Amino acid sequence: MTMPTTPVTATKQVYLFSEGDGSMRDLLGGKGAGLAEMTRAGLPVPPGFTIATTACNLFLANDEALPPGLEAEMVSQLKEIETLAGKRFGDSQNPLLVSVRSGAKFSMPGMMDTILNLGLNDRTVEGLIAQTGNERFAYDAYRRFVAMFSNVVLGYKLHNFESVLEQFKHREGVKEDTDLQAETLKDLVRAYKAMILRELGIDFPEDPVIQLKMAVEAVFSSWKNPRAVTYRNHQKIPHDLGTAVNIQAMVFGNMGNDSGTGVAFTRNPSTGEKALYGEYLLNAQGEDVVAGIRTPQPLSKLAEDLPEVYRQFVAIAERLERHYRDIQDMEFTIERGTLYMLQTRSGKRTAPAAVKIAVDLANEGIITQSEAVLRVDPASLDQLLHPQIDPKAKLDVIARGLPASPGAATGTLVFDADEAERLGREGKNVILTRVETCPDDIHGMIMAQGVLTSRGGMTSHAAVVARGMGKPCVAGCESLHVDLERRQISVNGRMFDEGDVVTLNGSTGDVIAGSVPTLAPELTPEFRQIMVWADAIRKLGVRTNADTPEDAARARDFGAQGIGLCRTEHMFMQPERLPVIQKMIMAETERERREHLARLLPFQREDFLGIFRAMEGLPVTVRLLDPPLHEFLPNLVDLSCEVAVLKATGSNPTLLREKEVLLRKVHSLHEANPMMGLRGCRLGLTYPEINEMQVRAILEAACLLVQEGLQVFPEIMIPLVGHVNELAAVKTHLESVAQEVMEKAGVKVAYRFGTMIEIPRAALTAAKIAEHAEFFSFGTNDLTQMTFGYSRDDAEGRFLNTYLDRKILADNPFETLDQEGVGRLMEMAINEGRKARPDLKLGICGEHGGDPASVGFAHRIGLDYVSCSPFRVPIARLAAAQAAIGSTLDRDK
Amino acid sequence: MTMPTTPVTATKQVYLFSEGDGSMRDLLGGKGAGLAEMTRAGLPVPPGFTIATTACNLFLANDEALPPGLEAEMVSQLKEIETLAGKRFGDSQNPLLVSVRSGAKFSMPGMMDTILNLGLNDRTVEGLIAQTGNERFAYDAYRRFVAMFSNVVLGYKLHNFESVLEQFKHREGVKEDTDLQAETLKDLVRAYKAMILRELGIDFPEDPVIQLKMAVEAVFSSWKNPRAVTYRNHQKIPHDLGTAVNIQAMVFGNMGNDSGTGVAFTRNPSTGEKALYGEYLLNAQGEDVVAGIRTPQPLSKLAEDLPEVYRQFVAIAERLERHYRDIQDMEFTIERGTLYMLQTRSGKRTAPAAVKIAVDLANEGIITQSEAVLRVDPASLDQLLHPQIDPKAKLDVIARGLPASPGAATGTLVFDADEAERLGREGKNVILTRVETCPDDIHGMIMAQGVLTSRGGMTSHAAVVARGMGKPCVAGCESLHVDLERRQISVNGRMFDEGDVVTLNGSTGDVIAGSVPTLAPELTPEFRQIMVWADAIRKLGVRTNADTPEDAARARDFGAQGIGLCRTEHMFMQPERLPVIQKMIMAETERERREHLARLLPFQREDFLGIFRAMEGLPVTVRLLDPPLHEFLPNLVDLSCEVAVLKATGSNPTLLREKEVLLRKVHSLHEANPMMGLRGCRLGLTYPEINEMQVRAILEAACLLVQEGLQVFPEIMIPLVGHVNELAAVKTHLESVAQEVMEKAGVKVAYRFGTMIEIPRAALTAAKIAEHAEFFSFGTNDLTQMTFGYSRDDAEGRFLNTYLDRKILADNPFETLDQEGVGRLMEMAINEGRKARPDLKLGICGEHGGDPASVGFAHRIGLDYVSCSPFRVPIARLAAAQAAIGSTLDRDK
Repeated sequence: MTMPTTPVTATKQVYLFSEGDGSMRDLLGGKGAGLAEMTRAGLPVPPGFTIATTACNLFLANDEALPPGLEAEMVSQLKEIETLAGKRFGDSQNPLLVSVRSGAKFSMPGMMDTILNLGLNDRTVEGLIAQTGNERFAYDAYRRFVAMFSNVVLGYKLHNFESVLEQFKHREGVKEDTDLQAETLKDLVRAYKAMILRELGIDFPEDPVIQLKMAVEAVFSSWKNPRAVTYRNHQKIPHDLGTAVNIQAMVFGNMGNDSGTGVAFTRNPSTGEKALYGEYLLNAQGEDVVAGIRTPQPLSKLAEDLPEVYRQFVAIAERLERHYRDIQDMEFTIERGTLYMLQTRSGKRTAPAAVKIAVDLANEGIITQSEAVLRVDPASLDQLLHPQIDPKAKLDVIARGLPASPGAATGTLVFDADEAERLGREGKNVILTRVETCPDDIHGMIMAQGVLTSRGGMTSHAAVVARGMGKPCVAGCESLHVDLERRQISVNGRMFDEGDVVTLNGSTGDVIAGSVPTLAPELTPEFRQIMVWADAIRKLGVRTNADTPEDAARARDFGAQGIGLCRTEHMFMQPERLPVIQKMIMAETERERREHLARLLPFQREDFLGIFRAMEGLPVTVRLLDPPLHEFLPNLVDLSCEVAVLKATGSNPTLLREKEVLLRKVHSLHEANPMMGLRGCRLGLTYPEINEMQVRAILEAACLLVQEGLQVFPEIMIPLVGHVNELAAVKTHLESVAQEVMEKAGVKVAYRFGTMIEIPRAALTAAKIAEHAEFFSFGTNDLTQMTFGYSRDDAEGRFLNTYLDRKILADNPFETLDQEGVGRLMEMAINEGRKARPDLKLGICGEHGGDPASVGFAHRIGLDYVSCSPFRVPIARLAAAQAAIGSTLDRDK
Repeated sequence: MTMPTTPVTATKQVYLFSEGDGSMRDLLGGKGAGLAEMTRAGLPVPPGFTIATTACNLFLANDEALPPGLEAEMVSQLKEIETLAGKRFGDSQNPLLVSVRSGAKFSMPGMMDTILNLGLNDRTVEGLIAQTGNERFAYDAYRRFVAMFSNVVLGYKLHNFESVLEQFKHREGVKEDTDLQAETLKDLVRAYKAMILRELGIDFPEDPVIQLKMAVEAVFSSWKNPRAVTYRNHQKIPHDLGTAVNIQAMVFGNMGNDSGTGVAFTRNPSTGEKALYGEYLLNAQGEDVVAGIRTPQPLSKLAEDLPEVYRQFVAIAERLERHYRDIQDMEFTIERGTLYMLQTRSGKRTAPAAVKIAVDLANEGIITQSEAVLRVDPASLDQLLHPQIDPKAKLDVIARGLPASPGAATGTLVFDADEAERLGREGKNVILTRVETCPDDIHGMIMAQGVLTSRGGMTSHAAVVARGMGKPCVAGCESLHVDLERRQISVNGRMFDEGDVVTLNGSTGDVIAGSVPTLAPELTPEFRQIMVWADAIRKLGVRTNADTPEDAARARDFGAQGIGLCRTEHMFMQPERLPVIQKMIMAETERERREHLARLLPFQREDFLGIFRAMEGLPVTVRLLDPPLHEFLPNLVDLSCEVAVLKATGSNPTLLREKEVLLRKVHSLHEANPMMGLRGCRLGLTYPEINEMQVRAILEAACLLVQEGLQVFPEIMIPLVGHVNELAAVKTHLESVAQEVMEKAGVKVAYRFGTMIEIPRAALTAAKIAEHAEFFSFGTNDLTQMTFGYSRDDAEGRFLNTYLDRKILADNPFETLDQEGVGRLMEMAINEGRKARPDLKLGICGEHGGDPASVGFAHRIGLDYVSCSPFRVPIARLAAAQAAIGSTLDRDK
């Protein structure tokens, strides 16, 4: 864009559309700049001018008085419009009518919006009749103008006009507004004006210039109305921008069958298909298309109705798209065979359309590949990878919980895992519904379509396991009462029994009664193309969080360059293993523990064989056991109640004794704040034999594959390190285990040892920790929890909502990384860690790895990779590419 | 100290005692430097020399070969000793015998220690007989030497010699070693040597020079033995210091009644009284004094036995004390009327003695007041302020828990608070014993002498409340099984019933059967004196943590300069208030909550009236409500069990319904990690009416007192801030409440608003937070919890023990502030906070405020004050003074 060619003086406040251009948004607002740009491009735009934002600011600063000279300038520019339109403002023969619209730099609800047909009065209405030959139309326009002006300029409520209108309709014995005759409408105008005089004590202004002046003042004033202020606060829009006002000659699409109005997109906004897409009505006004009283025609039909106008429109649409280099959403009016463009803007589009349009535009040479990459919102890709509820479907939403794992799932309600498994094996679709899930429910979750719980947060067992499985889950749906005994749920007075069908929307948290049409995901060629371009641009690696060979394979398919986090605890929760690990926990001696661990070893080795194979040639970061051991045992409250009841009833002494033993162990492992208790490397230092078994399994699996000739790169990650001595002690012990396994196998494996940085103290002492770690993986979930002092389970859905509603926090820090606090710790750790060990590998393995804003931050602070769940890998790839482009732009500035 | 006057060449490796001095610890080790210093001071020290640490390092570097020239130098210096002693090494008439002792720079267990009588062989033993006229003595010395040498130099186990000795005693039919005759001992020496030849294949070395060489080599080698290496690792002593070896002529105190041996202190090490204090035995060796076979005489008696020697000793003792400027602990031997000083060192002393000695020495002009302040270990003051268990008492310790609140308490076991209160009112001493205490127990705790719990950590309810009350508490005594139904405890098979007497040592965590004599605390004039000196020196303010007027008054008596932390939650836990706050929590609407809060307001106002009065003229920092609300309700597990049992038995439907309502609330407030949940300012933002009532109470109380003409300085502290917006929102609201109260009262109060810095994010964003806070108080307890990711309740007594045992952590970070991690965050917050607001007030209100090392850190990083429990105020005052002196020393360097 270039600067406007017309000389601009410091005091100029009113710009003809032909004097501005698209770059002048600060001065002319978004709409004004757009109209100027179209006018400059030679498109048929009804003539008009824009009053600059500077005038608004002077007005507000000057106690709401129009700045000196403005009125004169307006009147003078109005002359230009009259010339261009061939009509005269206030003329009784050939009157010029105008629209008045606000237009700030950023589109903003809450501002005064539009007044149409300004300039009408008892004299000019006659001219309008003369122009249109339609008295009814003219008076209908007149009564609408009076109501609209009185409402937005005089602040008189619209419903007052509606009551009068109803009286008139009643008097005339008609039902529809359209049935009122011209004479009645003329009476109505009189009645409206009388009411204004009676109620407000003022004569409705007849002078068009005064009408215009009052309208401009109303627009300026509306900058300060409370809704607008709130909106700006919310959107962080500065309050000193001010708004512009656009005055434009009216054109009419309802002047006969050579007139009309319509809307169109240059491409299909749902699919992205390259074809003009829109509809129109002949002899109609803009609002008729929207109102749906008559059925609009598809745009192609215009070629038959008005072939010349159609050809003209097609050419304009193409020009606009090339000019703006994006799909355009256009409004047009045809007045007596003349085409007028009223608006064009970039069109909103669905996620699949966004991808297709971006790739097509690039292939057509209209935009570059980098621009194509920037055109797609990474977060929207989620829609392309999971089945989605058909956006057109009507939904009976019965409750809303946390959107714990995205996608849609439909099935019958089932209340226990065994039943879910049984029905699942029969090929039935089921939704496993529990108060909370626990490791005992895994087999049911595997066979269920989706998981629904009434308790627990985004990191509850149900949520974590479901996300890992890529299965939809709605968690912590607290309005739902789950009655496991009666096998039913009740919610807001409605009951649903086992066998009833529900649908979960794991992307929104909605629980929907009945089944709902869904759309299957589809990886289109355009999707693959844009990913190829993104990969060529991005600097940041993208790995995945995956705990199974299936997840690993899927993520690799989605472009993952390795595993950044393989959580070993989920492996222990499988049904054939859980009893063994429970026995291990109950063991009284190290010897006993080792015996049970020896039984787990083959399982773990098998896990790693599968995962290493799926990720052959790529690094696999395995996190050693992290959660507190009590997570593998029954819940303290449930078990305590069971024991108390057994005691009180005396019904089963043998069972009581057994449960009491278990309860004692659960008690002894119980923690006040398990998040900050005996877990991670603290567990590894307390029971070294557990880590030892795990490292043995990792290395044995790696050795076997190396012997087969495969390439494996295990990265063994020690979690929850806060002091270098923890890492040093654990690592020294495990190094010897690794060496022993390799010596026995006679094989060398290229493994590394590293650590999670998820404790603030680890970040603060990163220089020392880096001496013992070959890589850092930022566990941003826990790092966020501890840096903020938030327990995610307790914060989300509780005080965090209050914080987000009250704007105490701009974003949920568990979704979008807090750059100011958590990010500062990360930057310290990166700088000091790399100083101590220049080849230190750095990544993120928290859920932020799949959040576009956080991926951008990861790029800027120089991480080597992010790691996220398989379905978020494409999101991260795209976001990383956008960040890389952004950095280039920054650099080029 | 000056450098040695004898010229030292680079290669000199052996120093006569007369060639060194006390400053040469690097070269001569601690013992060698001490002997040299005494020798230079002209004291009668048996002659000898020291082989330098440099020789040891050469030896170790050179594959354990003595460095070239060393042997020649030793032999040459030996000649000097022979001259001084008037004896000859290896002479059969008048043999010189020597002791060989290791002596590193720092005293170090695990090193080879001592060989006595080196130089004995079959020829020189005859000379010894000639010298002493005592054949039995000579052979006894000989057989001991052979055994000792074989053990420490040849590595042959001592018990082998003991078996042979036992055989001989059996053969001779005697019971005691002392009953063996000279002839038998002569045989024993032969048998020992034969055993060495048989078992080790070597002849016992007869040549005294070879004996000496081998002994020196053994000392050098022992630098590398595993115990010594472990000790150095532990104490962070560098491994490259090496050890020196001291060779000294033997003297004998058992050469008749003009000989003797003894130990003495220059002052009484128990009381500090200025009087020579010690004991001796005539015709005895050093070990006889210790062995207790004969009863030693008090030193004063020596004035009768050997008046000249006594006069000489008194003079030497006085000289030594003046020379070393501290109480001396001396060993001496008298050989045939000649006094020899064998050792002098600063004497160990009790805490009361340390205070008295320091003050006396300063008053005597021997040390300065600053030095006096440095001479007392601040932590030891704890002993002076609480009743202590008489260290001489024999204790029947039945269990050990956490030392949750210091001091000793004796009383009868009582298992519920009502009974404790009843008996307490009758004037009986009781120990309230519970699994855990809860707010319902407060009235019992108030009347109890001490509190004992089987569960809970250092921050459990029992611990926190007891510390606040200055009442001894042993918490989390897990080996104790408390049976509330039978009203008894069992521990390791022993039973104690209600009414049985126990004693708690809250300083060690010991639970002791029966009553135990205790010593009452006494604030001596010397104590008050040293505090005055400390206060004149220190820069750091010392405030107290106090929640009641009584605590405030006591702390002020101990020198507190205001309150740094007044916790308002403890006020809610009093019996007449708890039901009201419980109702407030159960309320469904804000209106209902406000009604209950209105009932609490007068109580809170009363609290603050008392506290402000007690602290008149000094600042009082009041923390707004901090803990999660569920802490005021019954425990989830207990209540769940109650409901489950009521349900199962169907016994009381009315009670069941009532309890179910309560349980629902407890459930809804239950948190997975309450430490990181809805508490602090999060609570204030969720239920603003609570903070509002508190600020109203604070300001109303302050206004009343100002009207009385008193000076009050309330500092209102908003807890748990992690983001500046939290502080800004809470403060804005509360400012308006404060203004309203003051306007109504027509009074101005000099109040401030500030915040705790206890969330890592707050420290990381301190610059922004300081814009809204007039003071920062570092809540180092929580800051430590979150920086380390440790839940204190879960860590202490669990994995933290493992960490301390394994030296993964040098100190418990909840006792001694972690300077590297937590301290780094604090320094960031201080620097950036002060930059944003130069007059920002900064303090610590965690328990670290009473830990001397942490107080030193607080001084160095420039805090304005520390705040600690009342009983720790003197400790903090002293530690702050020491830190100030330390800083001056650093600066003067």
